[in-house]
Amino acid sequence: MNNCKTAGLVLAGIAFAATAQAQKKMFTMAEATSGLATTLAPKSIKGATWQPGTDNFWMVDKDSSNKWDCISLTTKGAKMATQDPGDYPGKTAKSNLPALKWLNKDEAYYVNKQDVVVGKTDGNKWTWNTWFTLPASAENITVDKSKKIAWTVDNNLWLRDVATKQVTNETDKNIVCGKSVHRDEFGIDQGIFFSPKGTLLAYYRMDQTMVRDYPIPHWDTVPAIIEQIKYPMAGGASHEVTLCIFDPATSKTVVVKTNDGEKDHYLTSVTWSPDEAFIFIAILNRDQNHLWLNKYDAKTGDLVKTLFEESSPKYVHPTHSLTFIPGKNDQFLWWTERDGYDHLYLYSTDGKLIRQVTKGNWLVNDIAGFDTKNKQVIITASRESPMEKHIYTADLETGKVTRIDKDPGMHTALASEDGKYVYDVYTGPGIPKNSVIRATSGTFSESLLRSPDPLAAYERAQVKNVTMTLNIDKPDAIQLYGKLILPPNFDSAKKYPVMVYLYNGPNVQLLHNTFPESGNLWYEYMAQHGYIVFTMDGRGSSNRGLAFEQATFRHLGEIEIEDQLRGVDYLKSLPYVDANRLGIHGWSYGGFMTTSLMLKHPGVFKCAVAGGPVMDWKMYEVMYTERYMDMPQNNAEGYAKANLLDKVKNLKGKLMLIHGTNDNVVVWQHSLDFLKKSVDEGVQVDYFVYPGYEHNVRGKDRVHLMQKITDYFDQNLK
Amino acid sequence: MNNCKTAGLVLAGIAFAATAQAQKKMFTMAEATSGLATTLAPKSIKGATWQPGTDNFWMVDKDSSNKWDCISLTTKGAKMATQDPGDYPGKTAKSNLPALKWLNKDEAYYVNKQDVVVGKTDGNKWTWNTWFTLPASAENITVDKSKKIAWTVDNNLWLRDVATKQVTNETDKNIVCGKSVHRDEFGIDQGIFFSPKGTLLAYYRMDQTMVRDYPIPHWDTVPAIIEQIKYPMAGGASHEVTLCIFDPATSKTVVVKTNDGEKDHYLTSVTWSPDEAFIFIAILNRDQNHLWLNKYDAKTGDLVKTLFEESSPKYVHPTHSLTFIPGKNDQFLWWTERDGYDHLYLYSTDGKLIRQVTKGNWLVNDIAGFDTKNKQVIITASRESPMEKHIYTADLETGKVTRIDKDPGMHTALASEDGKYVYDVYTGPGIPKNSVIRATSGTFSESLLRSPDPLAAYERAQVKNVTMTLNIDKPDAIQLYGKLILPPNFDSAKKYPVMVYLYNGPNVQLLHNTFPESGNLWYEYMAQHGYIVFTMDGRGSSNRGLAFEQATFRHLGEIEIEDQLRGVDYLKSLPYVDANRLGIHGWSYGGFMTTSLMLKHPGVFKCAVAGGPVMDWKMYEVMYTERYMDMPQNNAEGYAKANLLDKVKNLKGKLMLIHGTNDNVVVWQHSLDFLKKSVDEGVQVDYFVYPGYEHNVRGKDRVHLMQKITDYFDQNLK
Repeated sequence: MNNCKTAGLVLAGIAFAATAQAQKKMFTMAEATSGLATTLAPKSIKGATWQPGTDNFWMVDKDSSNKWDCISLTTKGAKMATQDPGDYPGKTAKSNLPALKWLNKDEAYYVNKQDVVVGKTDGNKWTWNTWFTLPASAENITVDKSKKIAWTVDNNLWLRDVATKQVTNETDKNIVCGKSVHRDEFGIDQGIFFSPKGTLLAYYRMDQTMVRDYPIPHWDTVPAIIEQIKYPMAGGASHEVTLCIFDPATSKTVVVKTNDGEKDHYLTSVTWSPDEAFIFIAILNRDQNHLWLNKYDAKTGDLVKTLFEESSPKYVHPTHSLTFIPGKNDQFLWWTERDGYDHLYLYSTDGKLIRQVTKGNWLVNDIAGFDTKNKQVIITASRESPMEKHIYTADLETGKVTRIDKDPGMHTALASEDGKYVYDVYTGPGIPKNSVIRATSGTFSESLLRSPDPLAAYERAQVKNVTMTLNIDKPDAIQLYGKLILPPNFDSAKKYPVMVYLYNGPNVQLLHNTFPESGNLWYEYMAQHGYIVFTMDGRGSSNRGLAFEQATFRHLGEIEIEDQLRGVDYLKSLPYVDANRLGIHGWSYGGFMTTSLMLKHPGVFKCAVAGGPVMDWKMYEVMYTERYMDMPQNNAEGYAKANLLDKVKNLKGKLMLIHGTNDNVVVWQHSLDFLKKSVDEGVQVDYFVYPGYEHNVRGKDRVHLMQKITDYFDQNLK
Repeated sequence: MNNCKTAGLVLAGIAFAATAQAQKKMFTMAEATSGLATTLAPKSIKGATWQPGTDNFWMVDKDSSNKWDCISLTTKGAKMATQDPGDYPGKTAKSNLPALKWLNKDEAYYVNKQDVVVGKTDGNKWTWNTWFTLPASAENITVDKSKKIAWTVDNNLWLRDVATKQVTNETDKNIVCGKSVHRDEFGIDQGIFFSPKGTLLAYYRMDQTMVRDYPIPHWDTVPAIIEQIKYPMAGGASHEVTLCIFDPATSKTVVVKTNDGEKDHYLTSVTWSPDEAFIFIAILNRDQNHLWLNKYDAKTGDLVKTLFEESSPKYVHPTHSLTFIPGKNDQFLWWTERDGYDHLYLYSTDGKLIRQVTKGNWLVNDIAGFDTKNKQVIITASRESPMEKHIYTADLETGKVTRIDKDPGMHTALASEDGKYVYDVYTGPGIPKNSVIRATSGTFSESLLRSPDPLAAYERAQVKNVTMTLNIDKPDAIQLYGKLILPPNFDSAKKYPVMVYLYNGPNVQLLHNTFPESGNLWYEYMAQHGYIVFTMDGRGSSNRGLAFEQATFRHLGEIEIEDQLRGVDYLKSLPYVDANRLGIHGWSYGGFMTTSLMLKHPGVFKCAVAGGPVMDWKMYEVMYTERYMDMPQNNAEGYAKANLLDKVKNLKGKLMLIHGTNDNVVVWQHSLDFLKKSVDEGVQVDYFVYPGYEHNVRGKDRVHLMQKITDYFDQNLK
């Protein structure tokens, strides 16, 4: 009798599922992987830009990608005209309008392949000229408002003003000029710094001759060839960076006198003074625990003054340049976490702290501009919730913070030149993507586009936000945020396998209140195929303040693991979770965490996939590793505990490692050495490599990767 | 009722299996992998050697590995004495007696680390002297009976006679002297050739400067380092080899004038004339279809005469040097397949064919020596069966062939100096290993050791020899030999999964009548775990004559596949084979075959493991590939058909590739490029690599490899 009853219930369940599936679609793996960036992308506005010196907002016409709509805010959002840019260079039948970069009120430029094209408008009609054609090998093309162009060819820097000039002539390819340095850490993403009026050209010069070569094999030619890169590993010789200033008028170069006896220190936050007389550099020592904000004479390179110093028993982490207050040559905003959260401080250029502008248990994410009339800085910040980002004004004098936007979610802001208006693009729970122009004063707003739900036809996962409290009832109680993603036809009477996805390394936060609520359609694909997906940002992750991030200092892979195990405890407390079928997956730091969990807490997870995993921090690069772990020479215990190569024998369950053969971030050797150890220890591990791929697999082949990972869970958890 | 009956039968079967398992052991994976070479090795005689100029046979005493037994055959097998070698250099408590290499009737040498140790016996007592200590970096140590020693250090050759002399001084490391050349093809395994009396020293000089570098990454150091090897790929620039003759008396070197306008030809079969006046080289053209047996003046290097030529529309494949008839300076045996089977031909040194000595639809495997009194050459040959190898005399005048041994199986022969006696070691069905001394005349034999069955305690597989006939009832009917290996408790009423193991490339024959009958304890391990194992040598494999091997010429991976599919047809005809659960595994050429079968005949096999597989013959080395495939430039169709990289999308079923990261035979790129294609095509393939391993995984880690392969079959076939 009991059997009959159960059979009936099962049949009913199947019938229900079949009906539901008939109504709604399942994601294909391609949709799950790249749909949000392609066929399932929410509708959005292209080419949004504010015309300087005006209240004119430009965007590509929604219906015709070869015309612009120009909206004048002086008349409260009236559309001035739909402007046809005419036959601009590079225009083809299929081309979209290029993204305009304004040089001044009437002129803008774009780069079409190697051509720098300048357009001029008289308010109605555009005339276009190809102003300069760069060499085919030009990289890091930087166009200044002064209409000077700088670029790099291989390891050298070139400049075009009235003529073409070779700024540097380094014959050793390991001395690199005009490119980003310090492996793009410290927020650095460029090596070319025109002075505000374009008179002088500052650039980074990085000497890597003392750094050991690391081989990257390329298997796409026969015979295979080896690219030798310079990869400084933690504790080893690092590159030496200087800042040089080239004067096109004299063709002379000044080297800024940053040499304080430590050649492998870091040159961060490079900023020109508005009058071009000075250049500011935040010098950070190799140990990354002491910073000097220095002011140098741009003509001589001499140190004028150390404005102030910052130090920390753990680390100081500068990631922003100075932001000068519009109209003032002697006041700037400085970002620092010195009170525990990343806030803005108003300084004078003689180093005097005028005041702390923002304050509180939240942090500033971006500076979008200034409302010059009202003396307010326009920012985005995590003030409402660590899961959200909203737009605010912060009064430079009173520090009063006023929210500009309305809806929940993740907002980005693009301010007009004088900050009267902000273009707010946001996404949130139930909000695929909205684009709104707002008066910073709050007196006016105009919705430009509300994207319909691109996923309306699909069988969606159910997403539950989960919070966990560490040290509950104590003053230092900490909230952790997670998401539980349930199958569309979730039945709490069933037992489901769980796939935990994690990263949990510094500088990254996975979870936001956004659209889709799951954060990732592959999670929903897994949910559609019968998995519960769980993901959580434990301590060490970003956007939560200094104490939260620095909890892992010198001991990566310990406290984060405790937090993730708290997540596992939570999962095990759920009656519909099958605790014998837990899987885990992460990439990069998440691959390190995945492998750490499998080896330090064997038996918790039945199967795991670790992509591009760090296995031994001694083989990771200097800047990142020493910030969080100090040097191996000074933290033997921390490195030993985090080293996974000597813990292979602990493995229980199934572990697949995946690596890109050309990985120049977490070098291939991490997983290959792990395999060697697994063979030495007689431990069976699974493996796959993506030939030609660097630190991740993107583009069309990501579908193959996600299928590979999905198959592995299907084989071992179902 | 039917259900009850079935259940009863099943239970009976289980009970039977349980009883049997209690009596006999299963192989551990370590035993299955390396047991026959270690703990389960049949007993055998160590250090067997004939004392020249005597009828004395020496061997290490079976009970004490620090004494010798010397058997005098002059008294028909009487043991002369157990001789204690005393305190020979290198002796330790655990050491076994070194293998003696006789210099003359009373003196022998061995090499202990870097020491060349010479021992002298007065018939009772040995005295030992360390005669010369080689540099630590010495390789290719060659001790001549004249007590001269030659060796290489890096790429140069050294000689010790009365003093130490540097014979060559090549400063370019890509010019290599005194080492084996042509990638050890053509039976070449050395580069040092002392003249018969030790007066002159011939050596190979190989110039590889024109060969492209191929990178072999080594991941066992941090950062990884790249070893660049010279790997000539089919159709590309190949190395250039010359033969040089050094005269220690004058310190002058003569280069043998082999240059016929084709610098990348092959110098094979290098042989001195007994009087040292001439040196013989079989020059083979790059096309490998024309051979000139040339006689050169050793003093001048001048060509004296081309004794004869051999050519073939397919290929000529010299693999043996000339064998001079003892006591005759002007007669030698030449091996050739010119009549379709590898036979011996008696030639005079002026190039006259005296007679063909051996003949028939079988071939000579080895020359063991000469019965000088009776003018017979002592050989081993496949005359009884391609699955066996027996010892024969062949009369040099009449060609009469007489078998010496008695039992079936695989025999090896070690003849005394005058060929009166042969030491016969053999293994066969039911014969783990027997060691017998036989009079070549057949009048006497003495068994030295009959190994007990080392596998007696184990649950053994049942092995059935299988023959299949191609072109049955036609004059060109061909027999194929295979083995069917059945589970110990085989039940013909059940359905079993089958694992096919194959190689099927040229130069290799897998199957012999030997002990164990299966040929491989891992096959038996698989049988113990419920698999039927099948293996077969199809056309293209060796030991079957020229037509059989050359059937695959210019089209590797076609006819062999037809033959293997015949094997599959046979398997499918067996009522106890589950045709839906066929798996296949092979390594190297077998990996090529495995992948070919999966891509050219998808659906036949449900799962496959291909180790070190050739995926595109254009990336394999010149000597081997061009012999069987010609150059890619001249056989585009053959290379295209055999190329697996563009057939990935055909895959059905599961395929795992395995490769050694340091593979310098089938370079790693074969499997990595295949993976790249699989990603391009969206095809899921499985992968594993063995870091640090070259073309195979040997030693203790082979257990890990075979477990990995076994797990894959268990996951996908069970």
